[in-house]
Amino acid sequence: MTAIPREPRIGIAGATGAVGQEFLRLLAERRFPMKSLRLFASSRSVGKRMTFGGEELVVEELARDAMTGVDLWFFSCGASRSREFASVATAAGGVVVDNSSAFRLDDGVPLVVPEINREAAVDGDGALVAPVLANPNCSTILLVLALAPLHAAFGLRRVIVSTYQAASGAGDQAMRALLADTRSALEGEPSDECRAHFGQPLAFNLVPQISDFIADGPDAGSTLEEAKMVHETRKILGLPQLAVDATCIRVPVLRSHSESVTIETEEPVTVAAARDVIAAAKGVELVDDPLERRYPMPMDTSERDAVAIGRIRESRVFDNGVSLWLSGDQLRKGAALNAIQIAESVMTS
Amino acid sequence: MTAIPREPRIGIAGATGAVGQEFLRLLAERRFPMKSLRLFASSRSVGKRMTFGGEELVVEELARDAMTGVDLWFFSCGASRSREFASVATAAGGVVVDNSSAFRLDDGVPLVVPEINREAAVDGDGALVAPVLANPNCSTILLVLALAPLHAAFGLRRVIVSTYQAASGAGDQAMRALLADTRSALEGEPSDECRAHFGQPLAFNLVPQISDFIADGPDAGSTLEEAKMVHETRKILGLPQLAVDATCIRVPVLRSHSESVTIETEEPVTVAAARDVIAAAKGVELVDDPLERRYPMPMDTSERDAVAIGRIRESRVFDNGVSLWLSGDQLRKGAALNAIQIAESVMTS
Repeated sequence: MTAIPREPRIGIAGATGAVGQEFLRLLAERRFPMKSLRLFASSRSVGKRMTFGGEELVVEELARDAMTGVDLWFFSCGASRSREFASVATAAGGVVVDNSSAFRLDDGVPLVVPEINREAAVDGDGALVAPVLANPNCSTILLVLALAPLHAAFGLRRVIVSTYQAASGAGDQAMRALLADTRSALEGEPSDECRAHFGQPLAFNLVPQISDFIADGPDAGSTLEEAKMVHETRKILGLPQLAVDATCIRVPVLRSHSESVTIETEEPVTVAAARDVIAAAKGVELVDDPLERRYPMPMDTSERDAVAIGRIRESRVFDNGVSLWLSGDQLRKGAALNAIQIAESVMTS
Repeated sequence: MTAIPREPRIGIAGATGAVGQEFLRLLAERRFPMKSLRLFASSRSVGKRMTFGGEELVVEELARDAMTGVDLWFFSCGASRSREFASVATAAGGVVVDNSSAFRLDDGVPLVVPEINREAAVDGDGALVAPVLANPNCSTILLVLALAPLHAAFGLRRVIVSTYQAASGAGDQAMRALLADTRSALEGEPSDECRAHFGQPLAFNLVPQISDFIADGPDAGSTLEEAKMVHETRKILGLPQLAVDATCIRVPVLRSHSESVTIETEEPVTVAAARDVIAAAKGVELVDDPLERRYPMPMDTSERDAVAIGRIRESRVFDNGVSLWLSGDQLRKGAALNAIQIAESVMTS
């Protein structure tokens, strides 16, 4: 029976990245109970010093023989490293909360947003059903936080979502590249640092490609990011046939993702009823007073936990349906916060 | 019988604005036939000098007694000035192509995108049906250029569109405000120039409000911009009942608008068939080779005439339908270019 002890020895794999740094901030901010904390990264970051709760920690190399003595791992080091090291971590008795796409759609691996489907991770006795728990894609987490309560209240039939994704989704260096290219564009001496991170220039531009394109099969023509939004949403909501059209666009914003969402529902839905449902839902905040210019914006949601949802309107396209606009911190609820909440939700059981 | 002479005396009202400057560039670039050109603006710009074809022109005040002797007016001076001055211009014998929202939905005022509905502006003898011709909203022009050929081929049933609109839609000073606020954000000394133009900060932010919100009636909860996209699209396409959900978002881009569009069609539609239709359509360019990283982006469409359309995929949400992504220069085809093309299309008749 796999379980996380109440005061675990914690390891963060990928500690020096944008999500890794957010893990450190959030573990401190939430006073996450722990016996010890170790930081791991690739060889080029070994020896780097990072602070946690006033203490200085030295980054170790993520290597097979260094992975013992850790009860709870937060992995944020990319899918290929997750595939390489997750089984090493679990063989040594650790539980892994994995932020990559490596295992998300695997049968037997719970894909968890605790407000929605904590029960996917634990059995009737409160024990973990698997030693690896998957943290969903950032855009998907934000989306399902809006969809799940609306599904419970009105039943979901179709979802059309267009994203406005920040640079942070591509990591710390990508954010710096956006800043650098923006600065040089303003100075009239364009630089081209964004291309390495986004495939294209991003300063004052939009890039309708996030991750690689899929060449064949039912997802052909979509990017991996768009396919993730479709398949992960279905798995988290337990709706394997849910009709989802996702278009993922990178925008020159630093760290909050936003999404324009239109849904068709089974039951009639009014703006007032949808607002009530969102206002009562967990993990989200209703920010919807347009005449007072209150609506979700990345500048307001960055470095905040709750996903802001507003601009709720009745659909003209569907007899039953609403459109809405949401914004949430990609590094927090979209990544590190949700992973920590997964651990918290199964520890307190 | 109202008509524009083959070599008209031209007046531009609002010549000093972003769209006004684009008029000057495009009239020169297209060698638009003319006998004379006069520039008008509000009193604070009177006396300003602007160049056209190597010649220096002095800006005059847009005033009732100055509006004689002009055969063809391009108005780009805001809805309230259009309401005030259009009838003065037409009473003096001029034809007005108006870029504001003042008359767009009026019965008897043709709302024209020449590639789509030139015939709305002229009768069987080629005479103008009205002395005021309306230029549609910028986002609407880009949208209908994609929708019209797809409608002709497959029949439109429903349209869901989310926009990514550039600063240029709010004018020249708004573009400068975005540059200024971005520069000061990078320098760590935030300024707040965008608020006056966009209602909110825009540097590294997204603003889900373009124009004012509508408080009552069937469009309640939408912005004026969103309502324009619904009603103008219906009028241009001649589909008064077309179901359209529009969400308009301002993004920190300088001058090309982009849109994520999902449509349901009457007839079955494949990606290949939709691409063929777009490739053959006027005013647009198919840019759709994702595996080669070719897709529409604002950086590529700015200062270009054609609206780029790509990322065409079959919809999962509709049995018959596609999604697509488009980008087009808001100041060109979204404003000045379309207005000039309206004049050209009725002059050559």
